[in-house]
Amino acid sequence: MAESIATQETGSLIASNKVEGTAVYGADGERLGSVYNFMVNKRTGQVEYAVLQFGGVLGFGSDYYPLPWNTLNYDTGQGGYVVNLDRDTLENGPHYGATAEPLHDPEYGRQVHSHYGLSYPY
Amino acid sequence: MAESIATQETGSLIASNKVEGTAVYGADGERLGSVYNFMVNKRTGQVEYAVLQFGGVLGFGSDYYPLPWNTLNYDTGQGGYVVNLDRDTLENGPHYGATAEPLHDPEYGRQVHSHYGLSYPY
Repeated sequence: MAESIATQETGSLIASNKVEGTAVYGADGERLGSVYNFMVNKRTGQVEYAVLQFGGVLGFGSDYYPLPWNTLNYDTGQGGYVVNLDRDTLENGPHYGATAEPLHDPEYGRQVHSHYGLSYPY
Repeated sequence: MAESIATQETGSLIASNKVEGTAVYGADGERLGSVYNFMVNKRTGQVEYAVLQFGGVLGFGSDYYPLPWNTLNYDTGQGGYVVNLDRDTLENGPHYGATAEPLHDPEYGRQVHSHYGLSYPY
């Protein structure tokens, strides 16, 4: 069934499945990857970070880079999120492979936010 | 590519794409539908409500019922979310069709929460 406007986006809200798969561009306009999914605190419903899928070919060998939600700004011109990061900062950031389980504890959340110059607000 | 544990769930966090499609059961164990998607405040990253797809056949004719995030409790035994609601309360709740655009403003959020006996906390 086709997606209708009603189930996709409104003024202040965006649908979860519209965020997933959206392209992410760096500060210089280079396409870095796309949003694989995002992680939500089960109890509070707070999104803690989006997960950028980056690198690899056709999904093989790519890694997952958690990015604080606040780093993503949607740009209607580019049709994707723009992050004020260059590729080097991203590549040096926290990431994990498809088969490695990261530690998603508050300490990990603090590390992710800290790498991008943000305090961990949750 | 198969989903790994790493990209699906952790102790306190759940992946957006794991929430989508999860079955929702009523207080009496009856299957009410499934989570179609959920709506996130773009600025704050706060999930305001999940959208339950309910009724219809094979996706045709079903309606969309926004449910406050706090009403969903995951039950490992049933393998889905359990809401402390009966079908009547749900059917009388706010809902919209696939082609009708609801007003997703704060007033609508208050109505949704109020119907389920909750204050609107955002």
